[in-house]
Amino acid sequence: MADTQTRILLAERPQGLPGEDTFSVVSGPIPLPGPGEVLARTLLLSLDPAMRGWMDDRPSYVPPVELGAVMRSLAVGEVVRSENPAFAPGQRVAGLLGWQEYAALPAEELTPIPDGVDLPLALGPLGMTGMTAYFGLLEVGRPRTGETVLVSGAAGAVGSLVGQLAKIRDCRVVGIAGSDEKGRWLIDELGFDAAVNYKTTENLHAALRAACPDGVDVYFDNVGGETLDIALRLLNRGARVPICGAISGYNATEPPPGPASYLSLLVNRARMEGFIVLDYADRYGEAVEAISRWIAEGKIQARFDIVQGLENAPAALLKLFDGSNRGKLMVRVTER
Amino acid sequence: MADTQTRILLAERPQGLPGEDTFSVVSGPIPLPGPGEVLARTLLLSLDPAMRGWMDDRPSYVPPVELGAVMRSLAVGEVVRSENPAFAPGQRVAGLLGWQEYAALPAEELTPIPDGVDLPLALGPLGMTGMTAYFGLLEVGRPRTGETVLVSGAAGAVGSLVGQLAKIRDCRVVGIAGSDEKGRWLIDELGFDAAVNYKTTENLHAALRAACPDGVDVYFDNVGGETLDIALRLLNRGARVPICGAISGYNATEPPPGPASYLSLLVNRARMEGFIVLDYADRYGEAVEAISRWIAEGKIQARFDIVQGLENAPAALLKLFDGSNRGKLMVRVTER
Repeated sequence: MADTQTRILLAERPQGLPGEDTFSVVSGPIPLPGPGEVLARTLLLSLDPAMRGWMDDRPSYVPPVELGAVMRSLAVGEVVRSENPAFAPGQRVAGLLGWQEYAALPAEELTPIPDGVDLPLALGPLGMTGMTAYFGLLEVGRPRTGETVLVSGAAGAVGSLVGQLAKIRDCRVVGIAGSDEKGRWLIDELGFDAAVNYKTTENLHAALRAACPDGVDVYFDNVGGETLDIALRLLNRGARVPICGAISGYNATEPPPGPASYLSLLVNRARMEGFIVLDYADRYGEAVEAISRWIAEGKIQARFDIVQGLENAPAALLKLFDGSNRGKLMVRVTER
Repeated sequence: MADTQTRILLAERPQGLPGEDTFSVVSGPIPLPGPGEVLARTLLLSLDPAMRGWMDDRPSYVPPVELGAVMRSLAVGEVVRSENPAFAPGQRVAGLLGWQEYAALPAEELTPIPDGVDLPLALGPLGMTGMTAYFGLLEVGRPRTGETVLVSGAAGAVGSLVGQLAKIRDCRVVGIAGSDEKGRWLIDELGFDAAVNYKTTENLHAALRAACPDGVDVYFDNVGGETLDIALRLLNRGARVPICGAISGYNATEPPPGPASYLSLLVNRARMEGFIVLDYADRYGEAVEAISRWIAEGKIQARFDIVQGLENAPAALLKLFDGSNRGKLMVRVTER
């Protein structure tokens, strides 16, 4: 084990897209775990749209990342030293290790990864990504057999799982994505019924109406903006709109407009509801069990876009915002 | 009984506020009730913000009023002739009699008004107004003891009932209204805990935050617009936002902006939900019973703003939109 490690700090709060000055790469000591703590070596970082929100100095469901602190990031790692009997060296763990090679954390903040689980799966369908899709769709969206489920960011890590879960629930599933290649993947590989390329369609409203001839019963929103507004106009009576994110506006320098068509909720007795996956922590086990079974049965697939090298994390993060990632975006920190 | 009657037709779809050319007053025959129908003489018309939406040629929860048709309106009347054994002459009824002196309607579309009920009550707390407040607050808003309930349009017919129902549920109740007189009425007469005059306060967000020191658990929205946007920023975790209406935008000639702060729903795991009172028709009896009891106990009060004369209905309707009505707005069509 080396004496020093590389860490990436939040140097400056970005206006708009994170840029060259947003982060600083520094060398620092490897911490010693305190009493009850565990020192983990980072193996794989998860890059998620929500991280953009953590960079803003604004109250949210978690506090902002402090300026000068290591950039917060979900990750999987391997225990290298433990001051807690719950973890032994070699154990693989998931937690908020951050953009650094080594992190010392209280054992309660780490989740063990069972043997035999591929690490990318532990950050994807079996990690927060999967939990978000599972509870957001099934508990907030509550799709019923035969209903139409529309999902935006459909080729993204969460969206692609939402669509597959909705197919397992025997729904008609329509995905909104930003390229024809993504649309083909959704239909040909994941079993979506239809896909709409929002970047090339001339009239998104007409295209979605055509793809959802029976209207929309659940609109699972990852993007916000104009897409949300148009989707609201397609809601059926009693529809549910889980709000998972709003990536279209995360880098806006002015507050994006709200959904002008929100009164569709009134006319259609529909509901728009936010959720935070952390609230379902006591039920993660149930979701992991179900999703593991569906993966084994071939009903759930995931693809991963893995970038090499911690130092490339800042640039890789931008792929989420231009849509150039293909599947769940991660950074491999160490070769294992 | 005269041979002819006065009727007010929708002559033109208004752009913005209804004006001189929106309606035409005509003289026409008094219809004969067909088989199964009832002829009712209109006594009192209800004027409601939703009527503005009915004038637009836009799909909604009810079809638009046709051009050249009698303006749709809830009303109470008295049966003068009946071709249905369920109703006898002299029986008082509520239904969509419209802006006319006499209406022939199928008996199923009429609700009998029990003897002893004052007619204004039958259009107010014991009518659709009361049903809207009761089911919107209690079924969609679901306030719990000690929570803070914020209501806009608080001195309006629905809003003033919502606040009183929330007090019965032992909530802290804050009303938003458009004059200090209204605010005093809410606090001194109806028992609201606080009131904010949105027309004179310099900073509505700061004023509401001060009036709701523990945040907002239920925001019952009658107005939409900037008030909704500001209220969303005050939501507590798990808050509910019943959407009853959006009067601030009903006469807009451009689509009003949506609530830019809707992501507060995500951060706070909150829910914004529309409802239509008609969906609760099979439970009106329960609500009428409860509200009647609360009226008898002095826990619910209503005030009425009754304009004389059918021909004054078009001008009276505008009082809803400039806020000059004081209580539930009605038009007395015949002296009784």
